[in-house]
Amino acid sequence: MYRGGFTGRVLRIDLTNLTYQEEKLDPKIARQYMGGAGLGIKYLYDELEPGIDPLGPSNKLIFTLGPLTGTSSPCASRMSVTTKSPLSNTVGVALTGGKFPAELKRAGYDAVIVEGRAESPTYVYIHDGKVDFKSAAKLWGTNTFDCQDYIRAELHNPSIKVACIGPAGEKLVRYACIINERRAAGRKGVGAVMGSKNLKAIAVKGDKVRTTLADPEKFKEVQAVYVKHLKDSPYIASFGKTGTSTVLDATSAIGICSAKNYSETGAFQAAEFLGAEANAKFDLRKEHCEGCPVGCSQVRMVREGQYAGSLAEGPEFETLYSLGTTLGNTNLPSVIAGDRVCDELGLDSLSVGVTIGFAMEMFEKGVINLEDTGGMELKFGKHEVILPMLRMIAYREGFGDILAEGVKRVSEKYGKGSEKYAMHIKGLEFPAYDIRGAKAHGLGYATSYTGADHSRGYAFQEIFAIPVPYAVDRFAVKGKGKLTMWNQDVRTVTCDCAPMCAFILDMAVPDIALENTAGLVGGATGWDITPEEVYQIGERVINTARLFNIREGFTRADDTFPERIMTEPIPDGPSKGELISQSDLDLMLDEYYEARGWTKEGVPTKEKLKELDIV
Amino acid sequence: MYRGGFTGRVLRIDLTNLTYQEEKLDPKIARQYMGGAGLGIKYLYDELEPGIDPLGPSNKLIFTLGPLTGTSSPCASRMSVTTKSPLSNTVGVALTGGKFPAELKRAGYDAVIVEGRAESPTYVYIHDGKVDFKSAAKLWGTNTFDCQDYIRAELHNPSIKVACIGPAGEKLVRYACIINERRAAGRKGVGAVMGSKNLKAIAVKGDKVRTTLADPEKFKEVQAVYVKHLKDSPYIASFGKTGTSTVLDATSAIGICSAKNYSETGAFQAAEFLGAEANAKFDLRKEHCEGCPVGCSQVRMVREGQYAGSLAEGPEFETLYSLGTTLGNTNLPSVIAGDRVCDELGLDSLSVGVTIGFAMEMFEKGVINLEDTGGMELKFGKHEVILPMLRMIAYREGFGDILAEGVKRVSEKYGKGSEKYAMHIKGLEFPAYDIRGAKAHGLGYATSYTGADHSRGYAFQEIFAIPVPYAVDRFAVKGKGKLTMWNQDVRTVTCDCAPMCAFILDMAVPDIALENTAGLVGGATGWDITPEEVYQIGERVINTARLFNIREGFTRADDTFPERIMTEPIPDGPSKGELISQSDLDLMLDEYYEARGWTKEGVPTKEKLKELDIV
Repeated sequence: MYRGGFTGRVLRIDLTNLTYQEEKLDPKIARQYMGGAGLGIKYLYDELEPGIDPLGPSNKLIFTLGPLTGTSSPCASRMSVTTKSPLSNTVGVALTGGKFPAELKRAGYDAVIVEGRAESPTYVYIHDGKVDFKSAAKLWGTNTFDCQDYIRAELHNPSIKVACIGPAGEKLVRYACIINERRAAGRKGVGAVMGSKNLKAIAVKGDKVRTTLADPEKFKEVQAVYVKHLKDSPYIASFGKTGTSTVLDATSAIGICSAKNYSETGAFQAAEFLGAEANAKFDLRKEHCEGCPVGCSQVRMVREGQYAGSLAEGPEFETLYSLGTTLGNTNLPSVIAGDRVCDELGLDSLSVGVTIGFAMEMFEKGVINLEDTGGMELKFGKHEVILPMLRMIAYREGFGDILAEGVKRVSEKYGKGSEKYAMHIKGLEFPAYDIRGAKAHGLGYATSYTGADHSRGYAFQEIFAIPVPYAVDRFAVKGKGKLTMWNQDVRTVTCDCAPMCAFILDMAVPDIALENTAGLVGGATGWDITPEEVYQIGERVINTARLFNIREGFTRADDTFPERIMTEPIPDGPSKGELISQSDLDLMLDEYYEARGWTKEGVPTKEKLKELDIV
Repeated sequence: MYRGGFTGRVLRIDLTNLTYQEEKLDPKIARQYMGGAGLGIKYLYDELEPGIDPLGPSNKLIFTLGPLTGTSSPCASRMSVTTKSPLSNTVGVALTGGKFPAELKRAGYDAVIVEGRAESPTYVYIHDGKVDFKSAAKLWGTNTFDCQDYIRAELHNPSIKVACIGPAGEKLVRYACIINERRAAGRKGVGAVMGSKNLKAIAVKGDKVRTTLADPEKFKEVQAVYVKHLKDSPYIASFGKTGTSTVLDATSAIGICSAKNYSETGAFQAAEFLGAEANAKFDLRKEHCEGCPVGCSQVRMVREGQYAGSLAEGPEFETLYSLGTTLGNTNLPSVIAGDRVCDELGLDSLSVGVTIGFAMEMFEKGVINLEDTGGMELKFGKHEVILPMLRMIAYREGFGDILAEGVKRVSEKYGKGSEKYAMHIKGLEFPAYDIRGAKAHGLGYATSYTGADHSRGYAFQEIFAIPVPYAVDRFAVKGKGKLTMWNQDVRTVTCDCAPMCAFILDMAVPDIALENTAGLVGGATGWDITPEEVYQIGERVINTARLFNIREGFTRADDTFPERIMTEPIPDGPSKGELISQSDLDLMLDEYYEARGWTKEGVPTKEKLKELDIV
């Protein structure tokens, strides 16, 4: 029985020597970084040598929970995976939900730090305060579902939770993900790092010990408010009903659901074919993360035609974009089929789709031809190429071996002006939101410590017109610096550190986010923590991540966009004519750095670091 | 707690009215038919109107366990599924292992009789002495693995065992199977009957109550002898190591592993590419039925090439034939991939492969052409067609809709002399053993109550040269009548009724089979039962099944072979020149009927029925 949110125990696994040790969680660091990505970033910053190869044995793969994980707080079976990203060389953070995170907490750990590299394929089994190192020599090559099944069979326990990689992670596809159940720690190539360590899977058996709450009454009081907000939110109601496909309708309506590798938006009538109504026809059932009252995840299945029998948890909005709109593809069954295959192979469905979309535009523009693609006609709208391409990429066969490197490296290889429409920032592929029509959201991408990342500072004010902390004009450039900072800090502490589900925060409780987090975390831990201190934790995490990236050589010049965003206006639809010019970006960056107390070059000042107590 | 092998309870489920009732197992019937297929056949004979449509609501689908199921007897987590077969209109029996059978026993039932037809897709959940009828409207279309996963998720219990159909069963493919875990109740189209009843799955939660043994000391004594025999058997050792792929080597060595739809045997060097050694390279791990000390089931996975990532429990020998040798296919990865797809789609891998092989020969002989096949080049050796064909058959698309009817109906459709090489008996497709080189085994096919069925009277004397009850010459015709009767009766009572694993019986304990079964069943039930009585139960079951088939219009004329067996000698290899002529068959049938105490026309005499106490 652990009291107060934390177990107080950190598990450090050395794959090189197949040893492990338990460490105490430093209470000061816990208070300063709370948990989740904050804790992961702190470890990464403290422990990683600058300049190391993300796919070498010196990189670390850090699984972190937070004080709310495994408590009765709704939407808190969350876990962060933190590492140096092989796509961007920046901090890489990927969060996942499902049942694994709460199970890991019950196994007795706040964090698992994986170091080194096993000599041969290995999986680890964490149980009863021990770590067993098991051969994964034969498991190597399994898809993620078979892998989970067979580890449970091998360990004779159907309740064991498993997080694992598929063939894509094994083959070091730079955007490989980690899958637990049908959930992904999707982005930044965390699965490639796991593969580089010869680590096929982490299996965990919780001993059913729950962390108790330090102040249950306070906790439950805040929780009741939280649940009420969830119930009252029309967005959450729609999420519970149709999942995030509803976001495709919302973004299409305002002309920021990008299509055909950002060369279209509104002209491509995506909502009709890929929106919530279209998706609902494929509904099978809802899936819940442990303890979640919403159940945003819709399991969908294709019932007829060439993709019949394909079943996926999703597709989420971003996959509807990455295997749908950005490929010029309105065939929803192919998106569902592709989503399933991505999960099985352990591919980040977002990055892989954007990379295929980029290849399609290169193909249509003549940068590459049939010889390059090995005979594959990579034209927008040709859904028949999706499944074969996913497979070729995961196994690094033929042209797939090239696309497995991600948009940035593909464009560097082929050149010929393709860099202009290589949709990535710092190496991370673009999400669906056409930021030319949502400027603060765009500034979030430019300044995120992970690259083009919609999850590190979501501008719901622009996308859903939610006026918290104030209403904004999504086309306006001025005034976005402070807003982006607020979005990043609040999101970071609430969703990445506590951690709680991002979907729910943004659209249900942004106005009470800080109070809510203070109340729940305070109730769990016994800390006397204010909303202001909560906010400052977010800020501290962002600053620490920034220091990491600066140490890796990143500068203001990297806080930028692909040329298309800055020179090509959105060609159609309700956001037609919008772009973010270089001067727009400069203005926003100046504002943002100033709000953050950073220099004009984007470097945290000594004063700021002192204020945040960052050494 | 149930005492003495049986729970004494039978569950009758009426899908038309969505009701159920519990009945007592009649102790007299239990003693006369023991359990498993014997019990199923007795119910079928007593309860089915003659002439009913196997795919209509009047057919019944009967799941039966035996007195040993769920006891500590090794190799006894077995279950029979009995129904009127939509392939043959005869009794259809399919046995399966895995963990479902023992779980059903623990749920408190010796038998589950499913009647009628649900108005809409339904699954049943058997738990705590109750039956819940659940909608399977949304589950309809799932593959068998997803279906099991999602039922466990929906019922919030990862330990629940599920037996279900895939798309093939839903689409009434006549040789659709029922899958539990990765195991199949494979043959006779039991999955099509389940589909015709709109029954997607049976989920069961055992309450962990075990049946206790009436005479544990006697039971354990016999069990020890049994286990010793298992340990001493070189065949069982090889099964535990390489699975049934070893049978491909054994049958190839004596020239009875048929190839290319029975047009070749020895010339096709299958063992090199598809035998035990070749298979072992793909080994992932062993799988055990509950309580089995052998673990014959090998999970295999393809690690590279176009089938990389394909993982199957198997392939078993019969699948190595049906997707391998009989298709002229030496590409083992394609067999493994096809095996997996068969399990997912719920196709009997044996019948579907033989049907494709038959289509290949028709294609090569010009009976059908590209127009018939929808452009598919169905040539022997072309492994690329296997996966697409399996899919087209399961979904009844294009030419697949025709092949979904099975060899008999396909040959009736196309005619043109194709009947000669339509390899089926009574509508059931041929297994791998080229019976022209194993005459008693062939007589077993001709007289089996299910059609061409290697599992109802396996002539191990011919195939493995095991001299029990006496040594035989596999090419000889004379003297096979009595032997076949013995094989059928002993196999039926031991493997189909007790029930125990067939693999193990035939090759480890045939000499002590009757004593062993008498001892184990006697020890479990408390019956004072002799080996002679055990034998008679097998005979009684065979006679009852015969009466069922006679009532359906079957006569001596149906106890026959396809023309190829009777007119074309084996063209090559160690059994070259062998065939079973019409006069050979007549001689064997005369002998067999006489041994059975049947008339020349193959009808059980009144005296025989009286002797067996069959009313």
